[in-house]
Amino acid sequence: MPEKNNDCRKVVDIDLTNSRVEIKKIPEDLKFKGGRNLTSKCISEEVNPNVHPLDEGNIFYIAPGLLSGTPCPNSGRCSMGAKSPLTGGIKEANTGGTIGTYLAKLGIALIKIKGKSKKENVILVEGSDSANNMKVSLYYVKNIVGKKTYDATEILQSKFGSNTSIVTIGPAGENCYLASCLCITDIDGKPTRQAGRGGLGAVMGSKGIKALVVKNPKKTNVCYADKSKFMENVKELVDMLKKSNITSKGLPDYGTNATMDIINNYGGLPTRNFSSGTFEGVDKIGGEALRKTILKRGANPTHPCMPGCIIKCSNTYKNKKGEEITGGFEYECIWALGANCGIDDLDYIAHMNRLCDELGLDCIEIGDTIAVIMESGYIGFGDKKGAVKLLNEIEKGSPIGKIVASGCVAAGKAFGVKRIPQVRGQGMPAYDPRVIKGIGTTYATSPMGADHTAGFTVSYEVLEIGKSVDSFKPEGKVALSRQFQQSTVFVDSAGLCNFVTFATLGDKRGLRPAVKMINFKYGLKLKEEDLYKMGDEVLEMEKKFNERCGMSKYASDVPDFMRKEKLDTHDSVYDVGKEELAEF
Amino acid sequence: MPEKNNDCRKVVDIDLTNSRVEIKKIPEDLKFKGGRNLTSKCISEEVNPNVHPLDEGNIFYIAPGLLSGTPCPNSGRCSMGAKSPLTGGIKEANTGGTIGTYLAKLGIALIKIKGKSKKENVILVEGSDSANNMKVSLYYVKNIVGKKTYDATEILQSKFGSNTSIVTIGPAGENCYLASCLCITDIDGKPTRQAGRGGLGAVMGSKGIKALVVKNPKKTNVCYADKSKFMENVKELVDMLKKSNITSKGLPDYGTNATMDIINNYGGLPTRNFSSGTFEGVDKIGGEALRKTILKRGANPTHPCMPGCIIKCSNTYKNKKGEEITGGFEYECIWALGANCGIDDLDYIAHMNRLCDELGLDCIEIGDTIAVIMESGYIGFGDKKGAVKLLNEIEKGSPIGKIVASGCVAAGKAFGVKRIPQVRGQGMPAYDPRVIKGIGTTYATSPMGADHTAGFTVSYEVLEIGKSVDSFKPEGKVALSRQFQQSTVFVDSAGLCNFVTFATLGDKRGLRPAVKMINFKYGLKLKEEDLYKMGDEVLEMEKKFNERCGMSKYASDVPDFMRKEKLDTHDSVYDVGKEELAEF
Repeated sequence: MPEKNNDCRKVVDIDLTNSRVEIKKIPEDLKFKGGRNLTSKCISEEVNPNVHPLDEGNIFYIAPGLLSGTPCPNSGRCSMGAKSPLTGGIKEANTGGTIGTYLAKLGIALIKIKGKSKKENVILVEGSDSANNMKVSLYYVKNIVGKKTYDATEILQSKFGSNTSIVTIGPAGENCYLASCLCITDIDGKPTRQAGRGGLGAVMGSKGIKALVVKNPKKTNVCYADKSKFMENVKELVDMLKKSNITSKGLPDYGTNATMDIINNYGGLPTRNFSSGTFEGVDKIGGEALRKTILKRGANPTHPCMPGCIIKCSNTYKNKKGEEITGGFEYECIWALGANCGIDDLDYIAHMNRLCDELGLDCIEIGDTIAVIMESGYIGFGDKKGAVKLLNEIEKGSPIGKIVASGCVAAGKAFGVKRIPQVRGQGMPAYDPRVIKGIGTTYATSPMGADHTAGFTVSYEVLEIGKSVDSFKPEGKVALSRQFQQSTVFVDSAGLCNFVTFATLGDKRGLRPAVKMINFKYGLKLKEEDLYKMGDEVLEMEKKFNERCGMSKYASDVPDFMRKEKLDTHDSVYDVGKEELAEF
Repeated sequence: MPEKNNDCRKVVDIDLTNSRVEIKKIPEDLKFKGGRNLTSKCISEEVNPNVHPLDEGNIFYIAPGLLSGTPCPNSGRCSMGAKSPLTGGIKEANTGGTIGTYLAKLGIALIKIKGKSKKENVILVEGSDSANNMKVSLYYVKNIVGKKTYDATEILQSKFGSNTSIVTIGPAGENCYLASCLCITDIDGKPTRQAGRGGLGAVMGSKGIKALVVKNPKKTNVCYADKSKFMENVKELVDMLKKSNITSKGLPDYGTNATMDIINNYGGLPTRNFSSGTFEGVDKIGGEALRKTILKRGANPTHPCMPGCIIKCSNTYKNKKGEEITGGFEYECIWALGANCGIDDLDYIAHMNRLCDELGLDCIEIGDTIAVIMESGYIGFGDKKGAVKLLNEIEKGSPIGKIVASGCVAAGKAFGVKRIPQVRGQGMPAYDPRVIKGIGTTYATSPMGADHTAGFTVSYEVLEIGKSVDSFKPEGKVALSRQFQQSTVFVDSAGLCNFVTFATLGDKRGLRPAVKMINFKYGLKLKEEDLYKMGDEVLEMEKKFNERCGMSKYASDVPDFMRKEKLDTHDSVYDVGKEELAEF
């Protein structure tokens, strides 16, 4: 319960159909909500579950976290939400970059984008010294239409200034392709960060909007109930992040791609469309290989994805000539476009990653899709030239390009492939559910569809941070995943980077400093257990929305082939009980 | 309750994986069940709801009706069922032709096709004089692989004799395309009859089976509890069919395509992807036009679709040169490939219908799909040459062909079209839900997906047979559709043609003669009200299976655009309450 009414944030309501913008005080029922908690509540209450996701009746929401814009480390994550064209259900996709911080500094809790624009294709948000003179305007910028994201971003920076955060879609989003994402500028002003999953690029595209531009305000509008106590807890969390080997050493040095070596050794690295648990090419594309290549070519292996990040697990990548060709070149995309397609050439994978970022495509979904097409024999596993050609076809808008850009379920249907690694229509990330059954359970039960970030049980199952759980036993996996999903809702709502939990899980202080920061910012008296309650509430809300979209509780399962086909590394199948999953 | 155990039928159990066939007495719990009642019960109990429909774990069922093979008029319909690749839920597709009659004469209640064949691609069923010496064998026939259905049928007839019924798939089914159907020979031995909906061709294709060949036995194995009383009721039903103007005059003279003129006048003819309720080209492709063209060219306007049919609503169609190019050229396909695509050229539509039959494609789904692609602007509405080219691409297996053959939902995703007339992934037939709200309610609530045959309320709403119901009022439509769906389950289980109800609805004897025939054949004491109970039981079973496939009760709705976009003819939207639909 709030001690005093201390939430000074604003809601920006944009009605594109009538080119109208309204800036309001945050309404009572949304106060003290942020990030996913805010987007999921609004979707549940305001979006018609039966609406076609590309219809103007769908609403696109952007909400920085409760702690975004503050000195809390790693708190600048931003949630984007809508009814998903890919899953047909609720979606929150979470991104780093500058957007969360800038919006929060402007005092914005939420942007709602409704209707469909007749002409304007850019939304500009700016404000100088206080939330009261914040201005939101709609523009038509001719020369960004159809442009890839790097070009579009540059054009917008030259028009609106470089001290801006830009959220843009690529040709994929403009064409309403289901695998399209949103590309967000990083601290260098490059669109290397993605709100990747669920086809949200198509939602923005269906509204006629190519980009959102947010100017970094000179002054911050973030207010605090008790700033000095807030700052004490900032120190606490910084201390925890510095103490953890993973967040202070492993991630900064090797980035997320260190995971590839670990998961490969564990036998859970999905290879060639989830047909094996190890990839023989890992020494060419894994964490060690990547670090070596980056250092050799003078790129940066230790790059923050957002302002205030002290982990710096991201990177930049240069080609053989020393030209920077991509950034945010991380485990999921290297796995998806690499091991899962049988491709062991880092430069090719980096080129494909750049193409995905340029076209505005979710590289996980695209990697899953290319692998499914490879399984059909249309091109072979490991055919890196063929894979690049498929990506180029997307830009051309050819029929094969349209199939690739529609995601792995659509590709499976077109090509008659029945081994489709997906839940709720969304392709699976880089952990095989047959070997790491907790994360498989997260894939199965998350209202978002197959999503490793929704409840990263790998922390206990493989990384053994703070606790060790047998990843092979089906027993207890629903409870384990639930616990992780609950705390993830909190993390996603606070605007914290998921990797903060690598430090908090191994420290007896846990997430308490984060909870306290929320208390001292908003004048609340939340206890640590309240975050689990919040998690449950939001998950329940999301599940109900999905039910109204037409999904029954039995949609919560991995594809049947993973229950029948043993993974080679451990001769194991996914065997968590169906009824147990349904009752999640 | 059965008076005596009088069900002498057999079950043929085919295990393709191990090339094994077992012929068994019908088990107790399946006795006195036929057609859809039998296929839906078996799917519910034997098919894993989570199985990929193209996996060998799916089971393909064929069941003639309870009255098939008897002298009961119009009783030779045959149900085919499986988990549908198109809807992801339960499917029964119903066909005329010779198959139901021949199977029933052989004493077969049910064929179960399990597993996946390693080499054999043809199932042959034969028997000379009694069910006891019935034989089922598996063959590999080389020269039918990849063949279109007319050619494949001819080859099989030359190999196994012409006094056979053949169920075959075309290249579409062999390639596991979602819009593929099963093609069944008519009384002339041509594959003009389809078990069209839900992609069942792909299920047979996924099992490696190209065709089922059933020899017409010399003697019948149909047995009766009381044949003379049975025959009295045969007379009764014949009398009713002769008395009804529709079944004795309208349908024989004009065929089903008379409906086009009626529905067009009513303002409910879906035109150009459901964007209008009337088509200006109806005088070129409607019932009058078709009859005139058929007669002028010396084709047959009054053709039975199965043995024992006394309505004869089907036809044959010749081109300008007098060559027979298609048969079973009926309302749904002429609407789908004609009005719905803005095409008003009967010869082109007939050519497209032949192509669909040759490739083994559901022409309703294909018409819906081409119209969706037309809406994207890839080709224009009315572009008949473009439409034929799209069909030809399916045979080539090109990416655009794969998209077309995947159905309207997949095409909508690939082309970013959001007005998709479908329920549960299956394209809508030839009645607009906004003007004829009862049939819209059937589309929304039938466990089969959008399907006019699942509960043809048009009989009351437009044709006013026996009763007149206001088609525009949303009130009472759920109850109306339920009543029709219940009796349809009975009709589909008895093996009766749906058009029999045009006679029974307008006659106070109703379906009683049919119920009595079942009683006197099987030694039962069913009352007329029992058929509604049976209907409810089967619908409940089907809904439960769908729920386990991942569909919630809220999947029972028409697409949202039909609730928002007024149909031009009557300025009306579909407005039956969502909760009412969900509680069906």
